[in-house]
Amino acid sequence: MATVQSFKYALILISSLILNLFSANVFLRIRWEQSWTKMAATEAETVASISCSGHGRAFLDGLVVNGKPICECNACFAGPDCSDFLSDCAVDADSGDPTFLEPFWEQHAASSAIVMAGWHRMSYEFNDGSLISEELKTHIRRVHDIVGNAVTDGRFIIFGAGATQLLNAAVRAISPEGSSSPEKVVASTPYYPDYKFSGDTSLWKSSAIDSSSSQNFIEFVTSPNNPDGQLKKAVLRGPSVKTIHDLAYYWPHFTAIPAPADEDLTIFTLSKLTGHAGSRFGWAIIKDEAVYQRMLTYMSLSTYGVSRETQLRVLKLLKVVIQGKGREMYEFGYKTMKTRWDQLSKSVSLSKRFSVQDLEPHYCSFSGKVKKSSPAFAWLKCERQEDKHCYEVLKAAHITGRDGSLFGAESRYVRLSMVRSQDNFDLLLQRIEKLVTEEYASKSSMAPSVPRENKRNQSMLLDACYRGHTLDRHCIEPFASNLLD
Amino acid sequence: MATVQSFKYALILISSLILNLFSANVFLRIRWEQSWTKMAATEAETVASISCSGHGRAFLDGLVVNGKPICECNACFAGPDCSDFLSDCAVDADSGDPTFLEPFWEQHAASSAIVMAGWHRMSYEFNDGSLISEELKTHIRRVHDIVGNAVTDGRFIIFGAGATQLLNAAVRAISPEGSSSPEKVVASTPYYPDYKFSGDTSLWKSSAIDSSSSQNFIEFVTSPNNPDGQLKKAVLRGPSVKTIHDLAYYWPHFTAIPAPADEDLTIFTLSKLTGHAGSRFGWAIIKDEAVYQRMLTYMSLSTYGVSRETQLRVLKLLKVVIQGKGREMYEFGYKTMKTRWDQLSKSVSLSKRFSVQDLEPHYCSFSGKVKKSSPAFAWLKCERQEDKHCYEVLKAAHITGRDGSLFGAESRYVRLSMVRSQDNFDLLLQRIEKLVTEEYASKSSMAPSVPRENKRNQSMLLDACYRGHTLDRHCIEPFASNLLD
Repeated sequence: MATVQSFKYALILISSLILNLFSANVFLRIRWEQSWTKMAATEAETVASISCSGHGRAFLDGLVVNGKPICECNACFAGPDCSDFLSDCAVDADSGDPTFLEPFWEQHAASSAIVMAGWHRMSYEFNDGSLISEELKTHIRRVHDIVGNAVTDGRFIIFGAGATQLLNAAVRAISPEGSSSPEKVVASTPYYPDYKFSGDTSLWKSSAIDSSSSQNFIEFVTSPNNPDGQLKKAVLRGPSVKTIHDLAYYWPHFTAIPAPADEDLTIFTLSKLTGHAGSRFGWAIIKDEAVYQRMLTYMSLSTYGVSRETQLRVLKLLKVVIQGKGREMYEFGYKTMKTRWDQLSKSVSLSKRFSVQDLEPHYCSFSGKVKKSSPAFAWLKCERQEDKHCYEVLKAAHITGRDGSLFGAESRYVRLSMVRSQDNFDLLLQRIEKLVTEEYASKSSMAPSVPRENKRNQSMLLDACYRGHTLDRHCIEPFASNLLD
Repeated sequence: MATVQSFKYALILISSLILNLFSANVFLRIRWEQSWTKMAATEAETVASISCSGHGRAFLDGLVVNGKPICECNACFAGPDCSDFLSDCAVDADSGDPTFLEPFWEQHAASSAIVMAGWHRMSYEFNDGSLISEELKTHIRRVHDIVGNAVTDGRFIIFGAGATQLLNAAVRAISPEGSSSPEKVVASTPYYPDYKFSGDTSLWKSSAIDSSSSQNFIEFVTSPNNPDGQLKKAVLRGPSVKTIHDLAYYWPHFTAIPAPADEDLTIFTLSKLTGHAGSRFGWAIIKDEAVYQRMLTYMSLSTYGVSRETQLRVLKLLKVVIQGKGREMYEFGYKTMKTRWDQLSKSVSLSKRFSVQDLEPHYCSFSGKVKKSSPAFAWLKCERQEDKHCYEVLKAAHITGRDGSLFGAESRYVRLSMVRSQDNFDLLLQRIEKLVTEEYASKSSMAPSVPRENKRNQSMLLDACYRGHTLDRHCIEPFASNLLD
């Protein structure tokens, strides 16, 4: 009996020891697997776990107080954990900072993280002597192939520190060598003022086709256009005209993709594809080898290529973009943008004082559907005769937009950014809705038919929201839906 | 007896179970700690563990063959694991690629690694609206304070994509606004041709002090100088002269540090401090706020600041540089450079055909000792009357240097890089030693007194090294020491 008992104990003990060895083995294996990366991983996870109430974020390279990085709050939020809403704060709808995609990257934390060793790519050049990662180039081609927004076969690709550096490189590269008359660089209004333009294309249509003229033209075509989101084609024709296509926004978040671009020189930027504006990364797709070589020379003289840290990170991000069927990020992006546009359009449609651009539907070869645009910017117009300075009208309502005159258009227009954080958009929408409400408040007979009970609730909510120090979704959504449905 | 036995078993069993629970707990804790960073960490460690025979390296963003990145071999090595030495290969002593510090970063793998989350710093700007990490700026100040090579108190700091972008920004910023006569940008020969210079400073000494002249001068002062490693001072004086100090090499690896630089505008670059040339990161220290503001504007128009990936990585690298007493990297760097210089000088000292620059000792406030320079480049001179084209002389011996005429000097000079990988330097030294041996072989009576037995061994070794496909330390060291001692 005692022997059986002892045997039982011994059996359990042996099992236990085996389990112990197994655990120790797993433990050792993990310890081994995680040797030199462990400290960096722990640091990154610790910082990522700092809570900022959903209205901010702590960063690895943030200011350190009491040994840990502090919360950096979204605009109009403050406090150690960003939970204080600053009710009088002007909502910044000026910048095109595309942080609307941040939640997508949070949802794909594991696949989008990178670990960079201290010895990663210390050299000036890659091993083939170039300044450009071949792997990254291959991935850029794949991204375009999946979306179908640009022909890359047989084309040259070059990297730059964002679209601006590439635009400068492109203008230099396509200007005829030793030409005595300087190029006129032109664009169609409204245009994004990233270059010193010689006015609207319409002024130059006849000069461009005049073959006796020695004037050379470079036309910038931004499609979808910044600020108004319209798909554009080159306007000037003639032997003296060269074009640069800025296709920064030609992605399914913002527009239908009717067909792959097949132009002489197109420029794309990471910021509008994945939302990583801080990475300062863009690329150009070029037909002509001589132009490509001249752009390479420019990049090499200007900054000696794009930093290896950036190239490694962009590669990882694009791997996430193309993983699976390569549609997930666009679906997230389009859904977010469409929801925002539906909300804004609904609000503005009730107004006689404001209007936004028409969003034309186009057939999208990527989704296989006819779809409406959901541009990065609302091109808002103040319709009242007296509201000539629309920027000021909005400013008085605590909305900071960008004056239409900066885009070669009337000051009756203002560009409003639709691509910033959800906090930012929520507040923008709230302020627009308040403006629209005020429009009706001054002509009460024309007020939309909101039931009295709802109106009271809504007004109470509004009071709470504007008086209080917090802005939560419950401050905005009931207000928006009650008013507008 | 059986009960005691059972009790013993039970005790061991309980201990075992506790151990089990403990292991499981550790295991779970590690699992928890390593959630979203795990995949990236495993990837990085796997790539780092790929063996390339010590003559190459696999990188996370390298070309992928059969599912894993391939070895990228050091120059003159080949094969899937870089173990084949290409004996006829020309050694590249042209580029100043500072990979001599790579082993330091391997030794500090854990503290220098970073993990970057997919959502890290997506915005165009930091939270304070700037394009510059405050934490990084603080760390740059600390690095200078420890080394004592630059005054940073009360100075402005700006970042750029390497020294070249900062030089361009600086020239624009200090050129008088609306000045009708363009600046003459000058430097003292031999100078590094990173700008279009209007000749040597000596040509302009009298014009500069002529107060009636409307000519403005910008003098570039590179100290220690590239190519010859000499400590330099500005040459031009006068009200129309402004200076830009390029202090890229003013670090303890390369030179004594007599005193902190206290100039109007100094430029430093990461590549010569930590060896990370591929990061394209530099900074300028500026006295005058107006100049600082104009440089900020330039950076913002040119590339909209330096990528956030780079800024995060540089911060981490500088944390390693200043950790402990902040001396370890400089000790490693100086030791490596000094050993190389001792070897090269020993070899060249036996030659009547070649000479290198004198390395003057200076008091170094950082080390508290008088110390000789160990510059990044050897400024080699061909002494024979007929060797007017020294670059060609070396090229015939499979050494690629940089022709002295590119630095505004005679072609009798060649710049040889001393800062590349150990493989590269070993091969350079071997080729120089071969040239020196040949010098004596042609005049056998003047051969240095190497014992016959050693000479035979040495010749056998040489044969093996040049005939064979491998180049190991044993191929070089006995040869070098036998010949030269």
